[in-house]
Amino acid sequence: MTFKANPSYIKTKEDAELFLSTFDNFLLDCDGVIWLSETLIPGVGDFLKYLDDHNKRYAFVTNNSSKSRDAYLTKFHELGLDVAKEQIYTTGYSAVLELQRLGIGPGSKIWVLGDEGIEEELRIEGYFPLGGSDPSLDEEFYPKHPLLTVDPDVRAVVAGSTTRFNFLRCATTLQYLMHNNKLLPYIGTNGDRNYPGLYGLILPAGGALVEHLSFCSDRKYTNVGKPDTVLAETILRNTGFDRLETVMIGDTLTSDIKFGNDAQLGGGHGTMLVLSGVTSFDDLKGLLEQPHHTTEQESLVPKFFVDSLTRLIELLVE
Amino acid sequence: MTFKANPSYIKTKEDAELFLSTFDNFLLDCDGVIWLSETLIPGVGDFLKYLDDHNKRYAFVTNNSSKSRDAYLTKFHELGLDVAKEQIYTTGYSAVLELQRLGIGPGSKIWVLGDEGIEEELRIEGYFPLGGSDPSLDEEFYPKHPLLTVDPDVRAVVAGSTTRFNFLRCATTLQYLMHNNKLLPYIGTNGDRNYPGLYGLILPAGGALVEHLSFCSDRKYTNVGKPDTVLAETILRNTGFDRLETVMIGDTLTSDIKFGNDAQLGGGHGTMLVLSGVTSFDDLKGLLEQPHHTTEQESLVPKFFVDSLTRLIELLVE
Repeated sequence: MTFKANPSYIKTKEDAELFLSTFDNFLLDCDGVIWLSETLIPGVGDFLKYLDDHNKRYAFVTNNSSKSRDAYLTKFHELGLDVAKEQIYTTGYSAVLELQRLGIGPGSKIWVLGDEGIEEELRIEGYFPLGGSDPSLDEEFYPKHPLLTVDPDVRAVVAGSTTRFNFLRCATTLQYLMHNNKLLPYIGTNGDRNYPGLYGLILPAGGALVEHLSFCSDRKYTNVGKPDTVLAETILRNTGFDRLETVMIGDTLTSDIKFGNDAQLGGGHGTMLVLSGVTSFDDLKGLLEQPHHTTEQESLVPKFFVDSLTRLIELLVE
Repeated sequence: MTFKANPSYIKTKEDAELFLSTFDNFLLDCDGVIWLSETLIPGVGDFLKYLDDHNKRYAFVTNNSSKSRDAYLTKFHELGLDVAKEQIYTTGYSAVLELQRLGIGPGSKIWVLGDEGIEEELRIEGYFPLGGSDPSLDEEFYPKHPLLTVDPDVRAVVAGSTTRFNFLRCATTLQYLMHNNKLLPYIGTNGDRNYPGLYGLILPAGGALVEHLSFCSDRKYTNVGKPDTVLAETILRNTGFDRLETVMIGDTLTSDIKFGNDAQLGGGHGTMLVLSGVTSFDDLKGLLEQPHHTTEQESLVPKFFVDSLTRLIELLVE
């Protein structure tokens, strides 16, 4: 089985204009697309302005759960991007939506492995997060640490990215995952392997931490981040975006591109890879050159790709 | 396919004596068999004395790499067990043997994610460990941390257990795993999920950290711990134990029991599970009651099981 179609490389003004005219709605990943850690990728402000000027609509979909939507809003504003809270989808927020779907209502205690983003989203909706950023979990592990004793009122475990993970945070979380014959629901904000940092660094992603606890406990988790299609349906419903007129732009094949393809955005044509993040041209080439491949791999192939949003806006205003 | 034979439960003096008379050589796991963390399991000293008195030989095989063989020797002595260094096999040591097998000789720099056990074994053999217990890696992550820049002279990565893991230690290790198109050999000291702690705790094992970096980098690793058969061959060669007269005693199905079965110890009969560690009677029952199972699962079934070494020696001296 060969790939149905090779992705179109956007490299002229005409390519760029045709791409933009094809879609009304743009879903944008953040890290590797809009910024690298705290640094705005050049031209992104102009690109969003171009979308505004051409009556396009857009929203941001990040697998990062370390910041809440409110904290993301502040980050967008500090980087000079005029964005509304309703345009931001974090996986801390989608974890809350999953709890509600499971019938675990406000007032419940939830064990968190992750940063304030998850805790804030939980608190806003009336949940009581335990664990998370609790400073007593910054200590060295000792077996009588009070948080190693399971609180029987905890109803679920939510794990996501945190750069403050340590043995004690993982060990406390493991007690909940093993508790009561592994019955507590385990929600992971994503299954991402790594993400691009400054100076060419490749950094461990939150999904790797979710997988770490999944491995320790020999349990699966519910992935509420990209490429989960439940998240796509939620976003389409909340934004009112027409699926057929929507494209996902991202830097990661396994989360962003698969997300767009699995959700059949743009009727199966609504995916664009940018090479400004974790995926290199050689990575893409490697995928396309495989002599045999699976349906799973087919879902990783973008319909368009471009060097970066920087390059895309350069082409458009040429 | 049903299981060939259910394991024999050792519960009388006759069972115990028959078991002991069947084998000349005993390979013993440590955590969950000899001790729980720092606490000796009752009766273990008497059991080893029984082996000595009956001209049995024994060695210890631990997947723990946090301590060197010298440090283990000290621990044995502090717990009142008279053991020689030649009887101790740690996975820090087997990582060194794997480096030598790969032709990576003394004088080479090796990046370590793990505790002093690995570093000490490397230094003893003339290698230069980097990373590991370096206190500058206890800091919070910042992108210009000097150890995030890859040292081009590093020849391999060895990962094992450490309770000091943090984002910076994982991030620095990831740079080496991704370096040069993922060409540096990646050695893991084991693939264990968890191990038993005090007060009924179940704790993340070193293998989970090895797997964490494996997931981040999307790379496989060479497992130099149990159940790897290369390790079994090394131990049989170094100890001179006759394979047919040797039994592995351990608390973990996926490492200890599979190790003994895969190495065909005791002609395929040389495995005994103790229930004093991570595996409960219900876990064993669950495995045996599966209506369908694979060859892989077959390799997890012990030929004997007993509550603990405490119970075994009680039966023997009844």
